[in-house]
This record gives sequence, C-alpha cells and structure tokens, in this order.
Amino acid sequence: MKKLINSPDAVVADALRGIEAAHGDRLRVQAEPPYLIVRKDAPVQGKVGLVSGGGSGHEPLHGGYVGPGMLDAACPGEVFTSPTPDQMLAATKAVDGGAGVVHIVKNYTGDVLNFEMAAELAQAEGVEVETVLTSDDVAVEDSLYTAGRRGVGVTVLVEKIAGAAADAGRSLQEVAEVGRRVSANGRSMGMALTPCITPASGEPSFELADDEVEIGIGIHGEPGRHREKVGPASQVAERLMTPILNDLPFGSGDRVLAFINGMGGTPLIELYIVYAEVAKIAQQHGLAIERNLVGNYITSLEMQGCSITLLKLDDELTHYWDSPVDTPALRWGVSK
Amino acid sequence: MKKLINSPDAVVADALRGIEAAHGDRLRVQAEPPYLIVRKDAPVQGKVGLVSGGGSGHEPLHGGYVGPGMLDAACPGEVFTSPTPDQMLAATKAVDGGAGVVHIVKNYTGDVLNFEMAAELAQAEGVEVETVLTSDDVAVEDSLYTAGRRGVGVTVLVEKIAGAAADAGRSLQEVAEVGRRVSANGRSMGMALTPCITPASGEPSFELADDEVEIGIGIHGEPGRHREKVGPASQVAERLMTPILNDLPFGSGDRVLAFINGMGGTPLIELYIVYAEVAKIAQQHGLAIERNLVGNYITSLEMQGCSITLLKLDDELTHYWDSPVDTPALRWGVSK
Repeated sequence: MKKLINSPDAVVADALRGIEAAHGDRLRVQAEPPYLIVRKDAPVQGKVGLVSGGGSGHEPLHGGYVGPGMLDAACPGEVFTSPTPDQMLAATKAVDGGAGVVHIVKNYTGDVLNFEMAAELAQAEGVEVETVLTSDDVAVEDSLYTAGRRGVGVTVLVEKIAGAAADAGRSLQEVAEVGRRVSANGRSMGMALTPCITPASGEPSFELADDEVEIGIGIHGEPGRHREKVGPASQVAERLMTPILNDLPFGSGDRVLAFINGMGGTPLIELYIVYAEVAKIAQQHGLAIERNLVGNYITSLEMQGCSITLLKLDDELTHYWDSPVDTPALRWGVSK
Repeated sequence: MKKLINSPDAVVADALRGIEAAHGDRLRVQAEPPYLIVRKDAPVQGKVGLVSGGGSGHEPLHGGYVGPGMLDAACPGEVFTSPTPDQMLAATKAVDGGAGVVHIVKNYTGDVLNFEMAAELAQAEGVEVETVLTSDDVAVEDSLYTAGRRGVGVTVLVEKIAGAAADAGRSLQEVAEVGRRVSANGRSMGMALTPCITPASGEPSFELADDEVEIGIGIHGEPGRHREKVGPASQVAERLMTPILNDLPFGSGDRVLAFINGMGGTPLIELYIVYAEVAKIAQQHGLAIERNLVGNYITSLEMQGCSITLLKLDDELTHYWDSPVDTPALRWGVSK
C-alpha cells in the first residue's frame, strides 16, 4: 500500500490538522477524538444550524462543505466508519443558534442509528432537531451497510441547497422540507474502474480484473449490480443514466442539475468526457440541464470511477443552488 | 488500460465537448483542431489579454482557468503534446482587446518554440506580445523535454496573479512584470507514488516498485532525482521542502503562499496530511504561510503523488491573489 500518510492509525487526525492549518481562519477544527469541524463563527444566532457527518475517506465531503451557505459543522468518523453519537451531539450543540438544527444523514445503518441517538440526546437538552435522510443510489435496494438505498451524491446537493435555505432565514421545518425535497428529487448511480484501499486494512476493497468495471458500486467499495468488460465512456454513461432515468420521478420537459462526480482517483479530463455523454443522453430524453457540477465532491479514497447524480430543479431549489456559498470546497457568489 | 474515455484518439476533443456542454454559458470552446477555450466575452476592450496552453492531461490547467480575473484563452494540445503556433496565434488574436497579450509558457522545449513562433506571427499582425516563462521545478536542471528547469505549479499562480493585474487595468509591460515576479519568486518539486498512463500508448509512463516512490518527478512522468522506499508523509514533505527551501530566494521572516497540488489520482485527504507537514516545516524555517491552495490544480492524468509550490508574497502579489476570479476551477470574490 502506497499512500501519502504517516500511519494508518493517524490518517483522520493528521488530515484534520492539515485542514486546521489551511483553513483555521474560518474553521474550528478538533483534530483529536471526538473529531469536529465547525464554522468559526458558530453558533449563528437565529439561524437554523446544519450538521452532517459520516466516515472519512469521502473528502471533501463533509468537512470541505462547512462554512456560510452550507454546513455549520461536520463530524468526521474514522475512514469508512460512522462518527459517534457523542460527536454528533457536540456538533449539534456547537451550532445551535436557538432556531434548531438539521441533521443531514446518508442512509448507512451506523450513521442512521448514531444520528438518531444524537438527535434524542440533543432534544433532551432542549435543542430541536430535524433529520434529512439521503438515499439516492438507485443501484441496489439493500447493501452491505444499508437497509434500503445508499445515500451518495445527492448529499452534496442537500447540504448546499438546505444550507442556503438556512442562510436565508427559513425556519427549522422549512429548511428540513427543502432538504427532503432535494433528497426526494435526486437519483444517483456510480461505477468503479479500480477498488480503493483503506489505510487500516492495506488491502483493496474488492478485486476487479484488468479489463473489468463494476457498475453500481458503493462509495465504500460495496458491490454494485454487475461487472462487465470496460467499454467506452458513452457506454458507461448509458449504464448509469438508464437506471437513473427509469427511476426518476420526472421526465421530458423537466429541468435538472447534472452532477458528475469523481471517485477520487479519476482525473478531471475523464469526468468531462463523461459529462459530454450525460449531456447527450439528457437531451435525448428531453431533460434540460440548467445547472451542473463536475469534479471530485464525494469520493472513495483513491478509487477510480465516477458517479452521476440528477436532481430535478424547481425555481426555489435553483435559487438556493445559486445562492452564495463560502466553504473550502464549494465557493461562489461571495465577495470578499 | 482502463479509463473513462471513448477512444484514445478522441480524448481531448471529447473532453472539450464536455467542457463546452458544462460551461458554454461563459466559455467559447472549439472542440475540433485547432482546439481553443476562450472567454465568451473576449476580447475585452482595453484589457491586456492572457493566453496560456500546453499539452492536455494536466486539467484543470489551463482550460479550467479561463474566465474573468485569470486567462482569456487556453490552447490545449493533445495529451502531453504542445499545441501548435497556429492555435496560439488564433487564441492571441481572439483575446486582443488592443492592449496587447501576455503568453504564459511552461518551460518545455515544444511549448517554448511554438509560443515564440506564435508571438512573432502575432506581432507581424500588429498584436503586441509579452511572454512570461515558468521554470519553477527545482528537481532537475535539464529534463526529458526541457532545457533548464521545468515549469510546473507556479504556472497556476502566475495565471491567477497576472490575470488579476490585467483585470485591474495594468499595462502590458506591468502585467508581464507581475507575472515574471511570481515566476521568479516561486519554487516547486513533485513526487509520484504511481506512474500515469497516456491514452495513446496505453502503457505506464515508467515503472515503480510496489514499495517505491519517485522524488522529483515531472508532470509527464519524466525522471526525477531519485527513487526510495515509500516513507511517511512527513518524510515526503521533507524530501520536497528541503530542495525548495535551499533554492528559495528568501528566508526566515518572509511571507509565502503554500500550494499543495495533487497529481490527479491522489485523494484530498492525503493532500491535507501533506499540508500539515508542510506547514510544520515552514514554521520551523520562520516562513509565515499567509495564503494556501490545496487540491488537484496541475495534474498528470491519473498519477498518484503530489507537488509542493512555495511563492514568496509581497503586498501586491497578495492583493492580486485575493482579487476576484471566476473560472470553472478557481472561483472566489465574485458576487453573482
């Protein structure tokens, strides 16, 4: 195993120290357990707080999205391991400005249970909590770590759009409703060219032949739908778009946001090649791509591959997508 | 070879079609030879135009940096292949708003010769051209494609900072001087955990054992200084920082921008681990890191590894670094 790390045990703590060194002007980072990344100006009085979290190894998700217009705090677990209820409770209390807190939770069993417990603990301490669950991965119904569908790419979009709603002064219920609407109107599917290697195990998360790809892969290397010989990017795009389009709660004439995400080890030039194919297929289906995002936003360590997420837009979601955001990994509409 | 491409011959054209589909609202893209990416509103009357270019495979460099506050046009060559003088001339003419054009050229023999010819052709047509050469890689003096040092990470910083100077209405000579100052005050060095594979050859650019890294690698897989057993991130940072610090035209008490760049296949979590080590070493040497950039900005296809660039800052360079920029890959300080 070759990685730019000091030791398998120290990966998350060392990366958090780097995030603190790089972004300490805007983020408060706790680089020892319980790990936390919090907006420096938290809690923002009167604003609904947004907390997310999950196993590390998916960077920039979630810590890279902490800042004005997006998350108020992120709870990083160890690599591919859920953070703890204590950690989530600490984050929730740190960002409660009196208007309540929304938990954004990817649908993995550990994350769901721990966030549920944290919400109960927070409520017992007088903090109102609403939860938005993401489960946008159409590849499989149940999975290695999941009852129901896995939460993947749409999580980034929920964090951005609900974050903007919170920034706009919307109430706890309203922010949660906006987040749930994004979650309900987004669908994703991913694929891998190569496995990833977790630092703790030092071994590939699965084996794939030199000429094989896995369609429907999860962001922890969980099995997908099937394996096949590697084909052209047009075929990969078709393999991912067809199940998404068959599952989408909308059709011809609708406006969408198209999000082409890299799994961590795939270069940007390839993601743009996939984007060209996705744009072609969307057009054939009468979908108007009105917004897009292309890059590495929810990754799986150094896995090579990509995922596609489509989100049905309405005027409000588009407005919140366009609203200012000022985080290490997503930043626009902000003047200094 | 497993890549998200349609065919080895179509990589650049297909990626440009994706860039056009994703960013056609702001960029004019010519996806057939001669390839071009140009600001949609070019030429900006009275503003100095900035053109860069080079072989593809280093994305987001250069096309991802076209937009207000940075480049006016980029000329993508085929993968790891210089663009042609014709292409550079077309870009130069497309962005000449009457105030002249600056060519930002990485020091590789093909790029240098072709940009020289393009500058002569442009001048023959009445467009004033100044050239800023980058040669910041301290690893080796001459290299596979280079007389003198290779131009690497500092190119991104030249494009940003000279771009801001042009945006501020500075003259051709002034913009070129700012660019040359960045080039003169920046030093870089890179390393690889794995080779990259060019689509045309389908073969790794070099061989590296399972427990070996190459220190001083070039962005085309050119040989570096030496190979060694993979060590901790702290050792990697030390191996890269020592030659940079020994070569830097400055020392204790100076202010710097630290840029930790991923080679394309290395995940962000590892780049932050390296950043933590770089920050520690900078502090030990009395350097104050006042600005930083962490991510994949000048890549080498799917190579795993990183490079470090340090730039000595002064008030003017810092001001231009902070100035608004609105491109696909770097975007800040801009309100919608």
